[in-house]
Amino acid sequence: MKLSTRNTLKGTIKKVELGAVNAEITLEIAPGVEVVSVITKSSAERLSLTEGKEAYALIKATDVAIAVD
Amino acid sequence: MKLSTRNTLKGTIKKVELGAVNAEITLEIAPGVEVVSVITKSSAERLSLTEGKEAYALIKATDVAIAVD
Amino acid sequence: MKLSTRNTLKGTIKKVELGAVNAEITLEIAPGVEVVSVITKSSAERLSLTEGKEAYALIKATDVAIAVD
Amino acid sequence: MKLSTRNTLKGTIKKVELGAVNAEITLEIAPGVEVVSVITKSSAERLSLTEGKEAYALIKATDVAIAVD
Amino acid sequence: MKLSTRNTLKGTIKKVELGAVNAEITLEIAPGVEVVSVITKSSAERLSLTEGKEAYALIKATDVAIAVD
Amino acid sequence: MKLSTRNTLKGTIKKVELGAVNAEITLEIAPGVEVVSVITKSSAERLSLTEGKEAYALIKATDVAIAVD
Repeated sequence: MKLSTRNTLKGTIKKVELGAVNAEITLEIAPGVEVVSVITKSSAERLSLTEGKEAYALIKATDVAIAVD
Repeated sequence: MKLSTRNTLKGTIKKVELGAVNAEITLEIAPGVEVVSVITKSSAERLSLTEGKEAYALIKATDVAIAVD
Repeated sequence: MKLSTRNTLKGTIKKVELGAVNAEITLEIAPGVEVVSVITKSSAERLSLTEGKEAYALIKATDVAIAVD
Repeated sequence: MKLSTRNTLKGTIKKVELGAVNAEITLEIAPGVEVVSVITKSSAERLSLTEGKEAYALIKATDVAIAVD
Repeated sequence: MKLSTRNTLKGTIKKVELGAVNAEITLEIAPGVEVVSVITKSSAERLSLTEGKEAYALIKATDVAIAVD
Repeated sequence: MKLSTRNTLKGTIKKVELGAVNAEITLEIAPGVEVVSVITKSSAERLSLTEGKEAYALIKATDVAIAVD
């Protein structure tokens, strides 16, 4: 499957925290560089997300803001 | 200024492409790992975004989807 | 590839309009039911989106607002 | 009231699941085609969303990604 | 029509700038307080948005980030 | 820090409601004009958001839809 989503960052799942409705997934996409995702708990379970597993962070270009010091 | 936004990825601007209304900014956040952002052209000019400059990619956790193979 | 995105609506591309930077894609997901998507022109070209082709509309559950009369 | 939102999909509420803060609403927008929405619980209550009721799914065109096989 | 969207800010249109595909709308929601919106040009035309007209800015609660000094 | 985000609305925190995972923040940005934000509880705690404190609501222009009567 090919996606229109511009950013597909490959990484390793470092942490999975399950709440009542949502899940917080921490993905290491480069040494020391982490991306945090909040998805529904049911999605996390459907994808069988567990620590150590390879996964991708998908981020639309229009959802990336830029800041400078 | 401190932000509620969970993901603040520091990087170097690799490319700035200006359209009529929007601008596409490519940020290298780790060796070989790039994030593409689309912001308005006026914001890109206001922040004086140019190649080689340090910048941050700001991404809300709820805007990060997860995929697995 | 499996996605955390909750809504994956299969359809047929009805129209592809290319702007300078963006592209507007119209997908028919059921008889008479259409979904319009705006993605970057480069993504539309990368996916070779053309009328008549099968495609999926991917929509996060948190991006769906509800209205009632 | 007229909205700038491009996608207004009319449907029937199939399921309402209330969490502590959020609510998950499933809308059937065509026979066998469902859209899932996550809104705040207070919004779900304010709109009196219940199974069987008619409602609309509102989705911005820029929130619709496209995928192809 | 009642919306699940939490923020409905009433204002007066101060400026309408039309690009090729998008339109930038500036709404004054309180004396000296402005909100800028980017929608598609076709939506701006469909709603007949013109300076001086009353309009509402609709913003989902999850799209509002918070910052402190 | 300068942001590409177009809307930076200064206000005073009126209410902080903490759920298990999320927090709902109400900001008064002008007399009688409030903006509600839902962020993660951990972000609310990291920023020490409390009633009476000054804060900013950050909203991307593409996240603002427009409605007219």
